[in-house]
Amino acid sequence: MNEYRKIDDKDIEFLKSVVGQDNIFVGNEISEDYSHDELGGISNYPDALVKIHSTEEVSKIMKHAHENTISVVARGSGTGLVGASVPLHGGIMIDLTEMNRILELDEENLTLTVEPGVLLMEIGKYVEENDLFYPPDPGEKSATIGGNISTNAGGMRAVKYGVTRDYVRGFEVVLPSGEVLQLGGKVVKNSSGYSIKDLVIGSEGTLGIITKAVLKLLPLPKKSISLLIPFPNLDKSIEMVPKIIKSKAVPTAIEFMERDVILAAEDFLGKKFPDNSSDAYLLLTFDGNTPEQVEKDYSVVADLCLSEGALDVFIVDTDERKESVWSARGAFLEAVSASTPEMDECDVVVPRNKVAEFIKYTHQLSKKFNVRIPSFGHAGDGNLHVYVCKDDLNDEEWENKLKEVFNCMYNKSVELNGLVSGEHGIGYAKREYMFEQYGEAYMTIMRGIKAAFDPKNILNPGKVCQ
Amino acid sequence: MNEYRKIDDKDIEFLKSVVGQDNIFVGNEISEDYSHDELGGISNYPDALVKIHSTEEVSKIMKHAHENTISVVARGSGTGLVGASVPLHGGIMIDLTEMNRILELDEENLTLTVEPGVLLMEIGKYVEENDLFYPPDPGEKSATIGGNISTNAGGMRAVKYGVTRDYVRGFEVVLPSGEVLQLGGKVVKNSSGYSIKDLVIGSEGTLGIITKAVLKLLPLPKKSISLLIPFPNLDKSIEMVPKIIKSKAVPTAIEFMERDVILAAEDFLGKKFPDNSSDAYLLLTFDGNTPEQVEKDYSVVADLCLSEGALDVFIVDTDERKESVWSARGAFLEAVSASTPEMDECDVVVPRNKVAEFIKYTHQLSKKFNVRIPSFGHAGDGNLHVYVCKDDLNDEEWENKLKEVFNCMYNKSVELNGLVSGEHGIGYAKREYMFEQYGEAYMTIMRGIKAAFDPKNILNPGKVCQ
Repeated sequence: MNEYRKIDDKDIEFLKSVVGQDNIFVGNEISEDYSHDELGGISNYPDALVKIHSTEEVSKIMKHAHENTISVVARGSGTGLVGASVPLHGGIMIDLTEMNRILELDEENLTLTVEPGVLLMEIGKYVEENDLFYPPDPGEKSATIGGNISTNAGGMRAVKYGVTRDYVRGFEVVLPSGEVLQLGGKVVKNSSGYSIKDLVIGSEGTLGIITKAVLKLLPLPKKSISLLIPFPNLDKSIEMVPKIIKSKAVPTAIEFMERDVILAAEDFLGKKFPDNSSDAYLLLTFDGNTPEQVEKDYSVVADLCLSEGALDVFIVDTDERKESVWSARGAFLEAVSASTPEMDECDVVVPRNKVAEFIKYTHQLSKKFNVRIPSFGHAGDGNLHVYVCKDDLNDEEWENKLKEVFNCMYNKSVELNGLVSGEHGIGYAKREYMFEQYGEAYMTIMRGIKAAFDPKNILNPGKVCQ
Repeated sequence: MNEYRKIDDKDIEFLKSVVGQDNIFVGNEISEDYSHDELGGISNYPDALVKIHSTEEVSKIMKHAHENTISVVARGSGTGLVGASVPLHGGIMIDLTEMNRILELDEENLTLTVEPGVLLMEIGKYVEENDLFYPPDPGEKSATIGGNISTNAGGMRAVKYGVTRDYVRGFEVVLPSGEVLQLGGKVVKNSSGYSIKDLVIGSEGTLGIITKAVLKLLPLPKKSISLLIPFPNLDKSIEMVPKIIKSKAVPTAIEFMERDVILAAEDFLGKKFPDNSSDAYLLLTFDGNTPEQVEKDYSVVADLCLSEGALDVFIVDTDERKESVWSARGAFLEAVSASTPEMDECDVVVPRNKVAEFIKYTHQLSKKFNVRIPSFGHAGDGNLHVYVCKDDLNDEEWENKLKEVFNCMYNKSVELNGLVSGEHGIGYAKREYMFEQYGEAYMTIMRGIKAAFDPKNILNPGKVCQ
């Protein structure tokens, strides 16, 4: 493997000259937060943390790192779940959170140009105030847009609107060499050579550092309504999903949830969910431009669910009900996390008509290994969030069971033509599972691509394909 | 550059053993059609043409070619416009048109699985019979889906629905080494490593040969209507486009056309266009699920156009009118082509609010160089098709003027933050223009990627980044 040069006083002086004395932190000045992400199971401190404010700063730092073979990791809000932003080899951490201006709203091209540190929640608020819509809707609203692009984040609305990739028209990226490329732009179509833009999207900070992005917007749908539909059991609820898809209704989102997870969220938030008497629920959203159109769409699905065994259909149309349902949904991850001393997550994606089979299989695993495996997720797009909880297992039991359960789950996913990650990425934590699924020829191509971008392997080494 | 081994009798015997005696053609047996595409300005014959019928055949041939350093080009219907499928170095041409089965319609996942030789028109017909919709709508309906994916073809409906890339869930690809990879699948989300899938899409047959594809379908919109809107001049018509986008109406398509091109199409088809009395027209389509919704959408745009100087609004809602308008639109390329002994095409894409400026500039060039430059195209997505016509120029004048006019146009496109190709690709013909726009650092990355896939440079050499 690579040998990286350790940072010395001269490097620190150089970094100070680029970002200014106030924007560099070393040793004990670096907060513990920067040594890990939300759930990656891995931690390490950078040798130097720099808060940057311009593309030029990033470019200068990368040039220096490249010339001196120093490892560099870019970081947004650190909300990742697979350790992608953890500096395994120390080196320089580039913190992009203060490069966070909204640069331009272009209503003639329906684009928003932003710096990478703008938070997802800020984008949503800003465009909605202008009667526009940025559809990607990952649960973690305090993530930066740079992080979202680097992970190809998905979220709830993928059923109708797709994922982050589908809303990135172009961006500026600093290569590991320090060179700056402009990829795509405000253009709607592009057949101008290999899509380097699409390659960098979802590359988890290993191919380049995004310093500006042009996002595609849509007109804001004028009406949105949710349905909360209780079912007697989880299987029954999830088996509805392919039937809903086949009915040709187009929901914006289809989420599934079990009572256990709802109760955990009620506990966690100290607030009641509108209903918790049933074992399992589907939560659907429909949007459109007229109440009639939305009603037409959702009534087809409501009738279908009732005819197939749903216990009721709650229409979530008041602000109060929406808040109660969606704040619970938003708190699931934290609620599960708070319910156990340790956990790990499986973010598989399977074809939509295989979700029920996969979730049933996790129930079997839970019994077989005597370990709690709550789950929730995006039933409408086949992307599941399955949590294996440590609870009162000792460390050794936990390590062993976790490994076995994860192997079983990823093998099942392969059997169902699924993939390792739907939206949280590979980072550090899921590499082995991806290697096993993709095989040598596939990984050789990925590693060749990494080498084409980063011949000295200085940018976020040890991640994704390494 | 590379030295390729010439095919000898042993290679021919090998190819026969793979595809059978009836599916290989050499020397004079190869039709002239296979030496060129529709408009690439370059021609060369392959040494051997093989018609393949399975992934295994493609894989065996690539392995053999790889071991023996023989160049290979894949070809669909040959409807390209930039020479991407022309075998510059001879070698083996793999004809995929007979690998043309529709394999599976999966209504639970809304996907269609096809072999690469299925024609675009066949896909459209098949899914519509099943009340489903494959939105990409390139003008050339006799192109193969493999070719469409390899070019990231766009078409009319990109304004609302996006391009081919947006409707490819996954595919099987044979690498230059002969290895077979499965990329993506039926899954809706994917954050599992670098998106090799998106890299191969639009790579014009230089990174791998697609042998099976899983396409994303949508429910078929139940109602569709077109508006033909005459304007006193072209500027006035195109200047409407950003205003329409800004109005937050979402047309499916916005095409622009001038009287000259309409008259050429009338001549070519021997059929009348509904109106040819005005200098310029916008042709818009709106679709949706209820007549009320579609009417609401289009009436906003119709009123807006009338208030901004449109001369009239013709509603195109009968089958007869639709046929007359859209068959003319579909014939523009052939009509312009038939009007001149030789022509070349510029397929730039610019931000939507720069279309008018670009087209005005082509008018200036036409005057300055005294050469005819008709144009039409996708005003709604900024993708223009601009034709420089030889007419009665002699060969030397033509060469010189063409070069100068093209340089001017591509420079203007760069100035407007446009790109070299919106949907027809780079292939052989547009490489220099792309090199100039992208610069060395960008091209080095592309060439590194090509080398990662194809270290011996045997697959479609001399194209895109070379």
